[in-house]
Parts: sequence; C-alpha cells; structure tokens
Amino acid sequence: ESANEFRTQRDSLTQKLHDTESRNSTLEAQLGDLEQRLEGIQLERETFRKSLRSLLELLDSKIFELTELRDTLAKLIEGS
Amino acid sequence: ESANEFRTQRDSLTQKLHDTESRNSTLEAQLGDLEQRLEGIQLERETFRKSLRSLLELLDSKIFELTELRDTLAKLIEGS
Amino acid sequence: ESANEFRTQRDSLTQKLHDTESRNSTLEAQLGDLEQRLEGIQLERETFRKSLRSLLELLDSKIFELTELRDTLAKLIEGS
Amino acid sequence: ESANEFRTQRDSLTQKLHDTESRNSTLEAQLGDLEQRLEGIQLERETFRKSLRSLLELLDSKIFELTELRDTLAKLIEGS
Repeated sequence: ESANEFRTQRDSLTQKLHDTESRNSTLEAQLGDLEQRLEGIQLERETFRKSLRSLLELLDSKIFELTELRDTLAKLIEGS
Repeated sequence: ESANEFRTQRDSLTQKLHDTESRNSTLEAQLGDLEQRLEGIQLERETFRKSLRSLLELLDSKIFELTELRDTLAKLIEGS
Repeated sequence: ESANEFRTQRDSLTQKLHDTESRNSTLEAQLGDLEQRLEGIQLERETFRKSLRSLLELLDSKIFELTELRDTLAKLIEGS
Repeated sequence: ESANEFRTQRDSLTQKLHDTESRNSTLEAQLGDLEQRLEGIQLERETFRKSLRSLLELLDSKIFELTELRDTLAKLIEGS
C-alpha cells in the first residue's frame, strides 16, 4: 500500500474514533442521569414507606382506642 | 250507754269505714299503675340492652375489619 | 233494734275499720317503696344515658381521627 | 511522513477504536439494564399505589359504617 492509502485510512479512523468517543460520552451522561434518578426514586420510596409506617402506628392506636371504647360499652351494658 | 249512743257510734263508724275503703281502692289502683309502669320500664330497658348488644357486636366486627385492613397495610409496606 | 244489737254492730264495724286501716298502711308502704324504686331506676337510667353520651362523643372523636388518617393516606398516595 | 508512520498510526487507531467500541457496548448494556430496572420499579410502584387505593376505599367504607353505628347509638340514647 502506498503512504496515501495509509493516510486516508488514518483520517477515516480518526473520524470514526471521534464519533465513537462522542457517543461514549453521551452514554456515560445518560447512565449517570439514570443512576441518579434511580437513587432519587429509592430515597422517595424509603420516605414513602416511613410515612406509611407512621400511619400504620396511628391506625394501631386508633384500633386500640376503639377496642377500649368497645370494652367500656360492654361493661356499661352488663352493669346496667 | 243508751241504744241511741250505740247507734250514733255505729253510723259514724260506717261512714269512716266507707272512707277508708274508698282510700284503699285508690291506693290499690295507684299501686297497680305503678307496677305496670315499672314492668314497662323494665321491658324497655331489656329492649334497649338488646339493641346495645347488637351495636356492640357490630362494633366488634368493625374493629375486626379495621384490624384486617391494618394487617394488609403492614404486609404491603413490608413487601414493597 | 235493741241496744245490744247496736253494740254488736259497733264492735263488728270497729274490727272491720281496724283491718281496713291496717291494709291501708300496708298499701301506703308498698306504694312508697315502689315510688322510691322507680325514682332509683330513673336516676340509674339518667346516669347510664350520660355514660352512653360520653361514649358517643369518644366514638365521634375516633371517627374524626380515622378520617384524618384516611386523608393523610389519600395525600400520600397522590403525592407518591 | 513516511508510509511506515501512517501505518503505525492506523494500527494504533484501529486498536483504540476497538477498545472504545467495546466500552460503548458495555455502556449500552448497562443502560439497557438500568432502563429495565427503572421500568420494573415504576410498574411495582403503580401496583403498590393501586393496592393502597383499594385499601383507602376499604377504609372509607369502614369509616362510613362506624358513622352509621354512631348514628344508631345516638338515636338509641335519645329514644331511650
């Protein structure tokens, strides 16, 4: 092969490499974004679960209080 | 004493007896009324108690259903 | 009629009056008892009703608190 | 430059391009995985939200039934 052909190949490869590296950067940025989004979602989910757990405890105490009320009513009926 | 005196006493006693018997009838009627009223009140009370017992059973089932709902929520939180 | 007959009638009436007055006293005592019992029952009933009213207020507040909990859950679901 | 130099550059570029393309494939695979994971999480979240909405409706009906029970109690107290 002649020097000319090698140069043509080199230039073509340089261009291709440049394009591939550019695509690479784009992919890395997308991956970073997605990872951050995923992390955000998992944090949200944890916060949501904590709120639901507080709600569950509140519901527990309401059920307990209704049960006390029920017992008071039962005693009233038997004692009346 | 003379026959006249005895007659006067007899007539006075007859009148007194009549009054006392009349008062007696009044008292017996009042007693009858009161006994019926008392019976009515006790029947009412029994009916009232029965209604309250139905209500208590209903309250029991609502507490049971809230407890089931609470368990479903707990499972959802743990499984999420 | 002779004085003897009048005396016999007087004595018989005296005995009858005595019996009727005695029965009268018994009736009055029974009536008094019954009236007191009735009053007692009505006081009990009033006390019972007051206790039930307190219970009703407590039930109202529990329903209110469950409704608040329900609203919190609704907001959590919509905001999640 | 000589043909030799061009050839050396071409070979070096070919290697570099190969590495970059390989890295590219890896990134694309990671991105695909992450996107699928995110989609899975969002489906889960939607399912979870639906379950919570069913639970909310159930809670609504329980509150409604407790309110009916409360009204029945109120009427009983007033009518007793």
